[in-house]
Amino acid sequence: MEAAASSLLSVSPVSFARIRSSSSSSLPRRRIQFSVRACAAASGGDAGSSGEGKIVKAKEKGEWKLDYSGEKPPTPILDTINYPVHMKNLSKQDLEQLAAELRTEIVFTVSKTGGHLSSSLGVVELAVALHHVFNTPDDKIIWDVGHQAYPHKILTGRRSKMHTIRQTNGLAGFPKRDESEHDAFGAGHSSTSISAGLGMAVARDLQGKKNHVISVIGDGAMTAGQAYEAMNNAGYLDSNLIIVLNDNKQVSLPTATLDGPATPVGALSKALTKLQSSTKFRMLREAAKNITKQIGGQTHEIAAKVDEYARGIMSNTSSSLFEELGLYYIGPVDGHDVEDLVTIFEKVKSMPAPGPVLIHIVTEKGKGYEPAVAAADRMHGVVKFDPKTGKQFKTPSPTLSYTQYFAESLIAEAEADDKIVAVHAAMGSGTGLNYFQKRFPEKCFDVGIAEQHAVTFAAGLATEGLKPFCAIYSSFLQRGYDQVVHDVDLQKIPVRFAVDRAGLVGADGPTHCGAFDITYMACLPNMVVMAPSDEAELMHMVATAAAIDDRPSCFRFPRGNGVGVPLPEGNKGTPLEVGKGRILIEGSRVAILGYGSIVQTCLKAAESLRELGVAATVVDARFCKPLDAELIRRLAKEHEILITVEEGSIGGFGSHVTHFLSLNGLLDGNLKLRSMVLPDRYIDHGAPQDQIEAAGLSSRHIAGTALNLLGRTKEALHLQ
Amino acid sequence: MEAAASSLLSVSPVSFARIRSSSSSSLPRRRIQFSVRACAAASGGDAGSSGEGKIVKAKEKGEWKLDYSGEKPPTPILDTINYPVHMKNLSKQDLEQLAAELRTEIVFTVSKTGGHLSSSLGVVELAVALHHVFNTPDDKIIWDVGHQAYPHKILTGRRSKMHTIRQTNGLAGFPKRDESEHDAFGAGHSSTSISAGLGMAVARDLQGKKNHVISVIGDGAMTAGQAYEAMNNAGYLDSNLIIVLNDNKQVSLPTATLDGPATPVGALSKALTKLQSSTKFRMLREAAKNITKQIGGQTHEIAAKVDEYARGIMSNTSSSLFEELGLYYIGPVDGHDVEDLVTIFEKVKSMPAPGPVLIHIVTEKGKGYEPAVAAADRMHGVVKFDPKTGKQFKTPSPTLSYTQYFAESLIAEAEADDKIVAVHAAMGSGTGLNYFQKRFPEKCFDVGIAEQHAVTFAAGLATEGLKPFCAIYSSFLQRGYDQVVHDVDLQKIPVRFAVDRAGLVGADGPTHCGAFDITYMACLPNMVVMAPSDEAELMHMVATAAAIDDRPSCFRFPRGNGVGVPLPEGNKGTPLEVGKGRILIEGSRVAILGYGSIVQTCLKAAESLRELGVAATVVDARFCKPLDAELIRRLAKEHEILITVEEGSIGGFGSHVTHFLSLNGLLDGNLKLRSMVLPDRYIDHGAPQDQIEAAGLSSRHIAGTALNLLGRTKEALHLQ
Repeated sequence: MEAAASSLLSVSPVSFARIRSSSSSSLPRRRIQFSVRACAAASGGDAGSSGEGKIVKAKEKGEWKLDYSGEKPPTPILDTINYPVHMKNLSKQDLEQLAAELRTEIVFTVSKTGGHLSSSLGVVELAVALHHVFNTPDDKIIWDVGHQAYPHKILTGRRSKMHTIRQTNGLAGFPKRDESEHDAFGAGHSSTSISAGLGMAVARDLQGKKNHVISVIGDGAMTAGQAYEAMNNAGYLDSNLIIVLNDNKQVSLPTATLDGPATPVGALSKALTKLQSSTKFRMLREAAKNITKQIGGQTHEIAAKVDEYARGIMSNTSSSLFEELGLYYIGPVDGHDVEDLVTIFEKVKSMPAPGPVLIHIVTEKGKGYEPAVAAADRMHGVVKFDPKTGKQFKTPSPTLSYTQYFAESLIAEAEADDKIVAVHAAMGSGTGLNYFQKRFPEKCFDVGIAEQHAVTFAAGLATEGLKPFCAIYSSFLQRGYDQVVHDVDLQKIPVRFAVDRAGLVGADGPTHCGAFDITYMACLPNMVVMAPSDEAELMHMVATAAAIDDRPSCFRFPRGNGVGVPLPEGNKGTPLEVGKGRILIEGSRVAILGYGSIVQTCLKAAESLRELGVAATVVDARFCKPLDAELIRRLAKEHEILITVEEGSIGGFGSHVTHFLSLNGLLDGNLKLRSMVLPDRYIDHGAPQDQIEAAGLSSRHIAGTALNLLGRTKEALHLQ
Repeated sequence: MEAAASSLLSVSPVSFARIRSSSSSSLPRRRIQFSVRACAAASGGDAGSSGEGKIVKAKEKGEWKLDYSGEKPPTPILDTINYPVHMKNLSKQDLEQLAAELRTEIVFTVSKTGGHLSSSLGVVELAVALHHVFNTPDDKIIWDVGHQAYPHKILTGRRSKMHTIRQTNGLAGFPKRDESEHDAFGAGHSSTSISAGLGMAVARDLQGKKNHVISVIGDGAMTAGQAYEAMNNAGYLDSNLIIVLNDNKQVSLPTATLDGPATPVGALSKALTKLQSSTKFRMLREAAKNITKQIGGQTHEIAAKVDEYARGIMSNTSSSLFEELGLYYIGPVDGHDVEDLVTIFEKVKSMPAPGPVLIHIVTEKGKGYEPAVAAADRMHGVVKFDPKTGKQFKTPSPTLSYTQYFAESLIAEAEADDKIVAVHAAMGSGTGLNYFQKRFPEKCFDVGIAEQHAVTFAAGLATEGLKPFCAIYSSFLQRGYDQVVHDVDLQKIPVRFAVDRAGLVGADGPTHCGAFDITYMACLPNMVVMAPSDEAELMHMVATAAAIDDRPSCFRFPRGNGVGVPLPEGNKGTPLEVGKGRILIEGSRVAILGYGSIVQTCLKAAESLRELGVAATVVDARFCKPLDAELIRRLAKEHEILITVEEGSIGGFGSHVTHFLSLNGLLDGNLKLRSMVLPDRYIDHGAPQDQIEAAGLSSRHIAGTALNLLGRTKEALHLQ
């Protein structure tokens, strides 16, 4: 194993692939191993304090045996680290052990909290090496997307709070500037790190500072246009910026298909594979020459390292995509070899003016924890689990997620109409389209992390008579907004947008909150804008969108499970009449007009009101655009109080209803109108119920609003 | 000249550059020449009907001498072409002459209408070759951005309407699906053509059709992330798609700096330059081999052509960025050589399964019309002009554009505060930042056509203490929306957005209309959202944004000129109190609450009302967020009628005012509230006054609304 691991540094993807697969299949459970390249002569024997506790280094193989017994693992070195400053004097062996301890610590803590597991396991060596070499917060480390920031959080003063991660009032699941000065830039969405890092590097230079800026970005995030825009600009500005390309061959999440990790989509992946089959280290070699000139004898070690990389340089690829964009390419490097990472970072750090450098490291998602490596989804995002087996403690639910109901009904539509196709942006599992892909592999298009392209690509499909469903999370659709406006709506092209994760999303927090989609979609002249109040309605709206073929349409639905209503036969919905809502409860005086899944909460509010003797009308609006003018007019005329409710920002459904009422003179009289929307602030991550409370959108808030308007303020106060 | 032109096809950028500059400098005016590669043996002598009229081919040099006398140029071949079908039997020489005639026709017609001139002049040969070889509308030609579509429009049945271009009820300035079945996809914004084309190609394959899809995209458009996302996906899907990269070395518009065309920004340009210095033609050569095998002897000509390209293949660049993304690269090709273009298109068309092919052609913006080639701005967009000299008939104005007032005040701020920096996305002239760049060259960042990167890059600058102003048109900021939300607003980072071209924009039409920015910005919790009512207010808002350093801010301002108010001393504004509006006229009963430059129209409306005996209050809101609660409360309490007015879509200022009023019970009584916004449809291109009328936002509409609400419907009708 040692020889094979060592060869990673200098050669072929074939042997590399072999190593990866062998580490995930041939090792016994519970004793998870990961390869550590044997340190050179100086590092024979036992490493540092690795004899303590249960973390030991097997002398004969140079591999760690980690303890995932489920008990708190011993972490003798990690226990001495509160902040990166405590890592500076660690030996290479200590750093290796620290990485091993981090891995056990992460498995242990995430098993108790749930969260993003395997991305973090893949970068423990990287996090250790970066924090050993660089000095945050003066130096800036920007973790792209941020799933992988757990080891960084542990090493930067937040270890004691890791048990609160993603929980109400706890640590965020992503880097967050408010949370720590070591979090140079917040994340959640992908592919922003090079742009932000370049801004920081340019600002540093303009102000005569000398710190380093490091952007850590995955190969998946590299498929997004913003990363390319930023590289193109970085190559042009030639500022000193270090980009670490963390290549784990996972463009889409590993759940892109139901059958486990798929070949990464996108031609870029082929280019990266090609790079892995060559090795070159031009930059470091050239730098070594310069350094030799400048400081004489101390470059012996560098030269040896460089030679090792340079050995493979007879490959045919003379230039990579990154070099064409003006970056200096270094790699590929074994991203699980702390020593190599430290050596490279130290050398790049010591170079006076390297310009933008891209260090291509190869890592394995879930590295070192066999249940993760073996799982079809790599245990990307998990609930609480048994660390011994990786078995997750999933709460059984009588219903499926809205996402899955969407997928099932889309499949039902496509069974009946061969024009239907589906597009998603590297979110096969998240959008449920992995089910569609399984049934119609040739009609499902995963375009990579590329929402802009996804939207216009769908428009192109539609111009030729197909019926594309473009499934994108509400907050990610923001990235394709110009394309929605300019390529779809303006041209009135019938693309159907399935807007998942609408409204509050719980543990992922504000980066993933679908707050703005009603507002930014409903202002578009040609768009039909819908939201289902339950899973059966969702299926009817899928059918409605399929039937609307003369203009674009969208429907938003939340994270979470359906409410358990009867489903249409064969999961195939019936097209709704466009622009018509439905009355769920007939009452008097008070009308509650809900839009989307929050209609369920409106029903609960009406129930509370009924108990207090108030018979409220409850209406499921179904459509924000076109509005049901007749119905709204009637509600306004037949009630004293009209309350609109939506889990979205200002400017959306409530604003459309109000605008209609105002234009038609229906507000000129004494109707009391209130629009309940998400508050004008971001709601932190937390339990869904806590978020709804914080947002003021619970059934008690709705009922309380009605009571207040009825003048029953005391009861309202009591309720709220 | 002939020898030099011929060498274009096979080699060096040095000689190419030389040819370009010589054609623009050494030729006498009025007799503009452009190089046409000498046709092979068969095409000696006079070409086709070129002896007619004033278009002649100089026998001794193989060059056209074109007539730009200002009289209707003779166009004997063009006169026979109504649709592309009429071009099929033309000889190569006829096609060359057709290109020459198109050039004179375009100069003649645009001199009388204004419009986008030089982009169209650069692609006449391309348009002729494409329409000769391919068969629209069955084959799909997608013109990226669309500035360059004039020759395409002339060749596809719209010649007789070219005199109406960009005018009310006339032809659109961009491709438009509604306008012609030959316009496969609408445009206006850049970098969408590969995505759309790939969608069309995939739809074709799924439906078993056989047509061709051609996306024509500029090197500037290639700097946008969407183009990269699309290429990455095209290389992966491997559909048959032809991408024509029209490389005119103009990433930013030629007006990026005040000193004329600048070196194109972005590292990609260097890569393209490198490509121009090599030549290779691998695909065509390989294709030729295949074709030789398949059809035998007829490939003689192809082989000769291929050899010509292949001669230069000893260059060192073994792979280009495009090849890394999975495209087959062909080029560089002289984009003004009709014969070569036709040959290449025919060969690529005949290949059974080429996958995605990128044909890199090199053209010159303004080609063949010396005043354009010689102008600092290349006459990119022009008003009416004298075709003899290129001198534009600019209407003198007593005031400058809002854009320029913005630039001047930003310079004044930066003189006083060295933290201020500016970012734009390839729009130096459009945003006025070319003035800022001239004064502070090291503090002005043109990032290419890359709004996403621009926004996050600015966020990075701000995190390190600089004060970035990010100047982007309203409709283009849509492309950076996710970055505005996720990287700026959510993190409360003080990036200042100067949102130019807000509201209706006249001749550019709906693709460039800034309709949605108030709506999509004001829903963001941390954003300060402002709009100036005149140019002095704009300067104060620049100062205000500079002073707001704890959160993001934006201010929108329109296309067009200021109104002539006195400016602050030294063009340096004074920070306004955040969230405070100002009363311009105190009246009674009716309050008109304007937001942005339309306040001027509100004042006119008040003047009309005054003449009818109605004393209306007029308020300049200044801020949409935070609203001036105190002022709005007062307006609601002291008036019977409150009319909000903005040049923006539903969901913006009016919705925020209404929401505030509603929440505070101020709508529960008899206040008559109306929000006047842009209508719920796209307003076509046309004269600004026509657009305002169409939108129902003229002073007559505002006054009429007030009169109607006052019950004076007859007067209202009379007014409107």
